[in-house]
Amino acid sequence: MAARIIVPARVRTFDAHGEVTAGPDRLAGEEPLEIRLDGEQFTVTMRTPGQDFALVTGLLLSEAVITEVSHIMKMDYRSGVDRDGHRTYNVVDVRLAPGAPGPQRGAQRQVFTSSSCGVCGTPSLDSVVKPSAYPVAPPRPLVPAARLVALPDELREHQRVFDATGGVHAAALFPVGRREPLVVSEDVGRHNAVDKVVGWAVQLGLLPLHETVLQVSARASFELVSKAAMAGIPVLSAVSAPSALAVAHGRERGVTVVGFNRRGRCNVYTHPERITAE
Amino acid sequence: MAARIIVPARVRTFDAHGEVTAGPDRLAGEEPLEIRLDGEQFTVTMRTPGQDFALVTGLLLSEAVITEVSHIMKMDYRSGVDRDGHRTYNVVDVRLAPGAPGPQRGAQRQVFTSSSCGVCGTPSLDSVVKPSAYPVAPPRPLVPAARLVALPDELREHQRVFDATGGVHAAALFPVGRREPLVVSEDVGRHNAVDKVVGWAVQLGLLPLHETVLQVSARASFELVSKAAMAGIPVLSAVSAPSALAVAHGRERGVTVVGFNRRGRCNVYTHPERITAE
Repeated sequence: MAARIIVPARVRTFDAHGEVTAGPDRLAGEEPLEIRLDGEQFTVTMRTPGQDFALVTGLLLSEAVITEVSHIMKMDYRSGVDRDGHRTYNVVDVRLAPGAPGPQRGAQRQVFTSSSCGVCGTPSLDSVVKPSAYPVAPPRPLVPAARLVALPDELREHQRVFDATGGVHAAALFPVGRREPLVVSEDVGRHNAVDKVVGWAVQLGLLPLHETVLQVSARASFELVSKAAMAGIPVLSAVSAPSALAVAHGRERGVTVVGFNRRGRCNVYTHPERITAE
Repeated sequence: MAARIIVPARVRTFDAHGEVTAGPDRLAGEEPLEIRLDGEQFTVTMRTPGQDFALVTGLLLSEAVITEVSHIMKMDYRSGVDRDGHRTYNVVDVRLAPGAPGPQRGAQRQVFTSSSCGVCGTPSLDSVVKPSAYPVAPPRPLVPAARLVALPDELREHQRVFDATGGVHAAALFPVGRREPLVVSEDVGRHNAVDKVVGWAVQLGLLPLHETVLQVSARASFELVSKAAMAGIPVLSAVSAPSALAVAHGRERGVTVVGFNRRGRCNVYTHPERITAE
């Protein structure tokens, strides 16, 4: 598996002065993962292999197909093989439990999604915003600003694949009350990294995640705010910019949207009542 | 239109020492764009408004729905209004000409795509790799390394929306032989920025883009290599890392994949024969 997460490669390095060097390099893995629900294709996402079951679990929560882990009766890699006879581990079969909400009619994500795609597959705009089973309850928790601005560096300490490749995003769930992250995930796709940490929490029955901050290595888009809302995460913190729609959506759903969290400062765009200055 | 590209916002800035300031900020616009082909929904993409017709044109080329601008008979914003009675400019109707390849059967991108999604909507993996109407012809063009490593700074000089918001990606087509970019586009989505510059070139009948370098502000994923290949662009240069699949795909399709193009150096992962040291 490790060789699929961090992939060896050869590279030539050029500079402006005519120097050329050749040597080994390491790249982030990117492979398709097909998710099947009760035998039907639901979606295909480009992802970095690893934590696949957590990824699938988090994605199904984000899509309101499940709201708890008991809604998944069974999950396994399909036994099929590729043209060379190798089992690919790129198809996951999910069998839903009878009480699971299941996919919306006509909303099957029968799509090929990219490594940086999060809300693909829903045929109309209105159906994208799904009610959360775990609404965020303002104003809790209260997060000291000094704690909030420390999170990007704490996340950075755990980015092992980034250390090797420089080419992946990361997401982590930080409990408000103590230092270490609950879980850290890395992926070529921002949304996959978030699905992996949320899915890990779903698998352990930890939802709602009311006492956590979701820290991401990238910018905050509409889709990440939506994923936070679906898991009951009250604070989304990004090292880069939020989009205008991310801010509008955060305001509407009660999520504190933090951007440009870097170098000991951060911008709070929505629901600043959760951030305390002392 | 400008207010939809750069959106005013209020922000509070916190630091670790208890300082709080409040003030105005500017965010990158992110709105859905629905594309309809001959009356049927084809896809929905989250994008920064602006250059919408170029975006649609480039996306249709990437998806092999068209190979030249004459395949589009008519393109216009739909006249529908939102709940408040305002025309949204978020739905584009495309009428294809009789000779257009058109969407693959069953491959309608009837999907809601995120701002960072590029290859959404194709139901199986094999159908993602489409033959290009403009195959890249190795080894031309020859690009001096000194020229290549200068491109990120040249692109940066044109990133107006980034200057205002810090929150968007950019893409530019640089001719090999002279300094100024042919076209620069910005968008919250990497793939949209690329679709916009490619679509601009399609509209002007400039394909194949054999004598250009596509410079992007982000990392190089599978999807961006694929878009370069569809437009006949021989060199894709990214300031950040390529994924392993981007490199594999570039090797296969004859595209020179350049990564970590920053601070006067760059890494060449595939087809280095196009890059000259002098």
